[in-house]
Amino acid sequence: MADRKLRMGLIGGGEGAFIGAVHRMAAELDGEIELVCGAFSSDPERSRRSGEHLYRLPAARCYPDYRTMFDSEATLDPSRRMDFVTVATPNHVHFDAVVLAIEAGFDVVCDKPLTHRLEDALTLADRVEQSDRLFCLTHNYTGYPMVREARSLVASGRLGRIRRVSCEYLQGWLASSEEASGNKQAEWRTDPGRAGAAGCFGDIGTHAQNLLEFVTGERIEAIAADLSTWVDGRALDDDGNVLLRLSGGGRGVLSASQIAVGEENALTLRIYGEQGGLEWHQMSPNTLRVKWPDRSVTLRRTGGPETSTEAVSATRLPAGHPEGYLEAFALLYRNFARALRARNDGRTPDLDFPGIAEGVRGMHFIDAVVKSANDGGRWLDLPGKRKTRTEER
Amino acid sequence: MADRKLRMGLIGGGEGAFIGAVHRMAAELDGEIELVCGAFSSDPERSRRSGEHLYRLPAARCYPDYRTMFDSEATLDPSRRMDFVTVATPNHVHFDAVVLAIEAGFDVVCDKPLTHRLEDALTLADRVEQSDRLFCLTHNYTGYPMVREARSLVASGRLGRIRRVSCEYLQGWLASSEEASGNKQAEWRTDPGRAGAAGCFGDIGTHAQNLLEFVTGERIEAIAADLSTWVDGRALDDDGNVLLRLSGGGRGVLSASQIAVGEENALTLRIYGEQGGLEWHQMSPNTLRVKWPDRSVTLRRTGGPETSTEAVSATRLPAGHPEGYLEAFALLYRNFARALRARNDGRTPDLDFPGIAEGVRGMHFIDAVVKSANDGGRWLDLPGKRKTRTEER
Amino acid sequence: MADRKLRMGLIGGGEGAFIGAVHRMAAELDGEIELVCGAFSSDPERSRRSGEHLYRLPAARCYPDYRTMFDSEATLDPSRRMDFVTVATPNHVHFDAVVLAIEAGFDVVCDKPLTHRLEDALTLADRVEQSDRLFCLTHNYTGYPMVREARSLVASGRLGRIRRVSCEYLQGWLASSEEASGNKQAEWRTDPGRAGAAGCFGDIGTHAQNLLEFVTGERIEAIAADLSTWVDGRALDDDGNVLLRLSGGGRGVLSASQIAVGEENALTLRIYGEQGGLEWHQMSPNTLRVKWPDRSVTLRRTGGPETSTEAVSATRLPAGHPEGYLEAFALLYRNFARALRARNDGRTPDLDFPGIAEGVRGMHFIDAVVKSANDGGRWLDLPGKRKTRTEER
Amino acid sequence: MADRKLRMGLIGGGEGAFIGAVHRMAAELDGEIELVCGAFSSDPERSRRSGEHLYRLPAARCYPDYRTMFDSEATLDPSRRMDFVTVATPNHVHFDAVVLAIEAGFDVVCDKPLTHRLEDALTLADRVEQSDRLFCLTHNYTGYPMVREARSLVASGRLGRIRRVSCEYLQGWLASSEEASGNKQAEWRTDPGRAGAAGCFGDIGTHAQNLLEFVTGERIEAIAADLSTWVDGRALDDDGNVLLRLSGGGRGVLSASQIAVGEENALTLRIYGEQGGLEWHQMSPNTLRVKWPDRSVTLRRTGGPETSTEAVSATRLPAGHPEGYLEAFALLYRNFARALRARNDGRTPDLDFPGIAEGVRGMHFIDAVVKSANDGGRWLDLPGKRKTRTEER
Repeated sequence: MADRKLRMGLIGGGEGAFIGAVHRMAAELDGEIELVCGAFSSDPERSRRSGEHLYRLPAARCYPDYRTMFDSEATLDPSRRMDFVTVATPNHVHFDAVVLAIEAGFDVVCDKPLTHRLEDALTLADRVEQSDRLFCLTHNYTGYPMVREARSLVASGRLGRIRRVSCEYLQGWLASSEEASGNKQAEWRTDPGRAGAAGCFGDIGTHAQNLLEFVTGERIEAIAADLSTWVDGRALDDDGNVLLRLSGGGRGVLSASQIAVGEENALTLRIYGEQGGLEWHQMSPNTLRVKWPDRSVTLRRTGGPETSTEAVSATRLPAGHPEGYLEAFALLYRNFARALRARNDGRTPDLDFPGIAEGVRGMHFIDAVVKSANDGGRWLDLPGKRKTRTEER
Repeated sequence: MADRKLRMGLIGGGEGAFIGAVHRMAAELDGEIELVCGAFSSDPERSRRSGEHLYRLPAARCYPDYRTMFDSEATLDPSRRMDFVTVATPNHVHFDAVVLAIEAGFDVVCDKPLTHRLEDALTLADRVEQSDRLFCLTHNYTGYPMVREARSLVASGRLGRIRRVSCEYLQGWLASSEEASGNKQAEWRTDPGRAGAAGCFGDIGTHAQNLLEFVTGERIEAIAADLSTWVDGRALDDDGNVLLRLSGGGRGVLSASQIAVGEENALTLRIYGEQGGLEWHQMSPNTLRVKWPDRSVTLRRTGGPETSTEAVSATRLPAGHPEGYLEAFALLYRNFARALRARNDGRTPDLDFPGIAEGVRGMHFIDAVVKSANDGGRWLDLPGKRKTRTEER
Repeated sequence: MADRKLRMGLIGGGEGAFIGAVHRMAAELDGEIELVCGAFSSDPERSRRSGEHLYRLPAARCYPDYRTMFDSEATLDPSRRMDFVTVATPNHVHFDAVVLAIEAGFDVVCDKPLTHRLEDALTLADRVEQSDRLFCLTHNYTGYPMVREARSLVASGRLGRIRRVSCEYLQGWLASSEEASGNKQAEWRTDPGRAGAAGCFGDIGTHAQNLLEFVTGERIEAIAADLSTWVDGRALDDDGNVLLRLSGGGRGVLSASQIAVGEENALTLRIYGEQGGLEWHQMSPNTLRVKWPDRSVTLRRTGGPETSTEAVSATRLPAGHPEGYLEAFALLYRNFARALRARNDGRTPDLDFPGIAEGVRGMHFIDAVVKSANDGGRWLDLPGKRKTRTEER
Repeated sequence: MADRKLRMGLIGGGEGAFIGAVHRMAAELDGEIELVCGAFSSDPERSRRSGEHLYRLPAARCYPDYRTMFDSEATLDPSRRMDFVTVATPNHVHFDAVVLAIEAGFDVVCDKPLTHRLEDALTLADRVEQSDRLFCLTHNYTGYPMVREARSLVASGRLGRIRRVSCEYLQGWLASSEEASGNKQAEWRTDPGRAGAAGCFGDIGTHAQNLLEFVTGERIEAIAADLSTWVDGRALDDDGNVLLRLSGGGRGVLSASQIAVGEENALTLRIYGEQGGLEWHQMSPNTLRVKWPDRSVTLRRTGGPETSTEAVSATRLPAGHPEGYLEAFALLYRNFARALRARNDGRTPDLDFPGIAEGVRGMHFIDAVVKSANDGGRWLDLPGKRKTRTEER
């Protein structure tokens, strides 16, 4: 029965976590996936309570830890067993959870950034690539219809060669020491042991890097970074600006901040080519401003006329019925589910979602940004297309 | 097990219907409801096909018609039986489907407008009120957090007595004869036999009327209407403007159009009181502009600071993570599910969703608008608080 | 010396008046006109003080009243004498001042509305038309480049026949009794003896009516009005909504308010034709949104590509250098000045500015709106193309 | 007669020049200045023709060159002689024209950047400072009311210490080789011999630098620059990004481009302090977005409530009557005129306009940006408060 829903397990997402509910809603939105089990917390009692109350799951499938989950699910009848697992924990847990999942034979969806250390990312990439499991990294902003439209427009060549880009991701929620006030989300994100080498640039800078590369279809080849830490006692960056060069020759700036007071989640992308430009704002995600040298600005819209097949396939509602963050996130799950079905059916899956290569690129980006910032803003090259060890052999 | 998901059946929503998928996604979004069966089309084969492919349901629960569905589901074990049914058909089917559902003991969610004839609406209201079933009418735009914020702000009295209102709902998709081109959505909406006495005003004018009354907490007491039909061969209005008076003494305009070329789904509400005003646009739903005589305009935001408890409880994501149409729609289902659970548990349900009274008011509004327009725009009173026959006794 | 500056006199515009300085700045902006004299107040001392300090004029040309000004200027050498006079007084003074000016041989620029009584307007129109003097009524909003672009776009037929229009003019500054607090601007505007039969609709409703007719090239043929007075003790309307029918068959709404708290000067025009639509906001005047059934919205811009000759000729700066209220106002003066030069040179003047006919139409509009509102919102016809007594003969 | 208009001469601004008309309109807007003479072109015949037709001046005061103008005007009766001169030529002419003007005893208004070589700027600063003449550099964007409001808000300390800034100035008009198509504006701006060491950064990057320093009240202390030239055959930069550090410790980015296709004149400033932030867009100049960590964004408006004395004094019209580019430009002239009157009257002038020190800072900025870009983006310090040679002694 090819059309049954795929069964998902969730690691993380216990009480107080924002992203767990997001994964559940996004995964289930298109009716292709259902959450069936989870290890929602490292505290077994909390895991069970979260599973029962937040996700309405039977206690038997609210596991005390992910190791137990993998073992127990593997023994279940295939008609009930989870198909894949989502890792939605702080960064330092990703590596171990993904490795074990793959070893236990489960496909994986994982939060970004890939790991908290570049070294782990490279190792993990090997493991993923040597397995036959599918891997999706939730760079969810690529799921917006108008981001797809932007990618399609660049790929069409109508903007010409890209000259100038800017990608900004500004938030203000860490302008004060939230981590000292018991905000769990703030705590781990500002802790090098859990977040990794970068704070703001690991958390949201990588989203900007990924979005920029996704839409342009180019790689960031070199960067010069300036990172700051504004809040007393904070160990990691909370703001920064990065000059960059693209593989196609374009130049630009990537900025990220979590101390930009009053900004909510202001991810913005602007691209200027030889013959046209575009502008997209995550907070008004259903509009793509398209610019021309000798014509009026036009507003392409989710569900609107003149949009590409790619955008249309990411659209669920008629124009003017706003689609938002969850809908964009859900596109990754939908595409992941379809790839799983194809693979399971012996067809070639269409890997139309961010994968391990994007994860490794993100880690290289973080690594380079931190190194450059520590070295007076020196320009550093990023590794090129051969991104993972497997590829490098 | 109070926490189990509630089971939903769906009438309508077969292939080619937009609103069926919306109901499914909205109902399931908060993890409180799952779609388990349906009569998706009056064509049995099409119903089965839709159920299996669109909703991944077993063939056994894809019924050939809703009568069969009610009968069959009633015989199922309570642990599997559907709890409530959603009626998402063209207007002329609502009456029969709702009446049968109630008689079969199912709670009901129903698309607006309530029926296609005022007479039916009054009868239906009696039936609903005489039963112990819960009834929700999907005036989904009331589910937006910033609409809740607006209602809360008006209720707080901070805007003072309301003087001026305007509510517009403009679309352009019927600017040409879509109904002659095989667009099923256009066909029934422009057919008096299926849509009722009004076209544009039945389809979207009632949304505007409901939104206006929801936010102000007042009733439209009198109207003077000017309706137009612009497309050749069309039997119902596709555009109109209505002058109005509110129960609190305020005045204003309500406009609706489906021939406003280039407009997608532009529902806008503006309210001006003695001491403050507000403005909300459905297409940018996460911002509420609040206006004062002697202070700067402020932008209240979904998930943002200074928002009311009511808005917060309708919010799922942090500020800046856009929530959209589906999320707003889902709020009605969430509140309906919670009321069902409360009722089932013997608690007093909080009926925080539009119900039969709102349905009857909408039908009175349609009736008055059409009558006034047919009578040269004469001012007509709408029935007051005593809205249904049951109440009138 | 054809290229000398034209010399302007000003009636009104003394200390405390907002509009006097506007006339001076607008008139002089394009370097074609210079203010040389005035009767700035009915208080001779105040007139002299205003002229010397606000306008840097010699005391000899700051006249105690306009009668004296006309007499004195007429005796001056033609190389110094004023060429035309601007009447920028409260409405009730317009009639007498304009009549005397014409009799004294001066061309006239006059604030809107034309007079404070329809009867006077008709008489005045006769006088103007029987003279050889040029007359400009300062419906200044028609001077914006994007309003010109809108007119040009409608005239091109690309939007098709006009179906739906809406024109709103919302302000909030009279939401409280400003007239009781010594605000002179509020005092005369709310005084029937000085303002005329309408308050809000005389002051700003006529601007909306004029703008609508200017851009569509059609006349408002019939109206049904609902006027309100919200502030205690106020004698004239401060808010209202008017249903309307256009000479081309289109329908719509015209709204005006001075009690819309928090609104500054929100004049908005939207037009929907069979094949396209447009939207313009006076507070963002350099953008014209153009809408199509099957293409993306485009943003035409002052100074931008694809704009009409008409818009270009009203534009002074490159795109992106905002032009505002004064620049729009100045266009009327520029066109008036050029018409004067043409007439003086014996050429046929291009009367590209609102004139006496527009003034009479505005008075008919005010008259009909007030009558309809007083008669329960009855539909009333407005006089057609033959607008003035002279024409009617 | 202290209240007479001040008399202005203009160098440059002949046929085909955009900025000459701007200076004339801006200077005369507030009724304090009148243009009386000029050397409008280096071609005597063209100068005369421009003066007569563009500015309606008598041929006798349309001089063949500025040297002649200074000599001739100096011989005129003081009641007719020009009071000050505006230098609105390509950059390479500034030095000589200003030096001669000062030597001839005239006060000076000069376009930015100050000169085309840093060396000249330092010399010129000496000359200006050693004279008793007043000098205004037309960094016109500082004249917007909401820029004044922003400065006032920062100065009030309510935003706290500044952490992050970004200032962008994006245009698209040089995306192709306009200079090869006979566009005079493009020709000199892309010619090192006339523009100086920088193209885009000299023309508009300095505006961004000045605006940033004006509003923050801080200096850019260090920069690391990345400049690009995208158009074949162009000798100077047409795009670039600059990392920066402010004297108060803040960091940020300054970007400028003239190849950002589709951008008109997009100058944008954003500032984030410890306790609040602000955002301003030149193309919507009458709104200042003010951001707070725990309150809604508020929109301060030109002419609106809650604005500072500083903003109010820069405002000419009631809120909602858009003021634009010319009005902002005019503020510099008004303040300059008032300073001249004060100085002439023996009072201490309020030098509330950009002066020679700002000019020198701009040249240091250009110099550092070009040097850093040529040296692989190395961080370079800018000279501090002691900006000119005179001060350095």
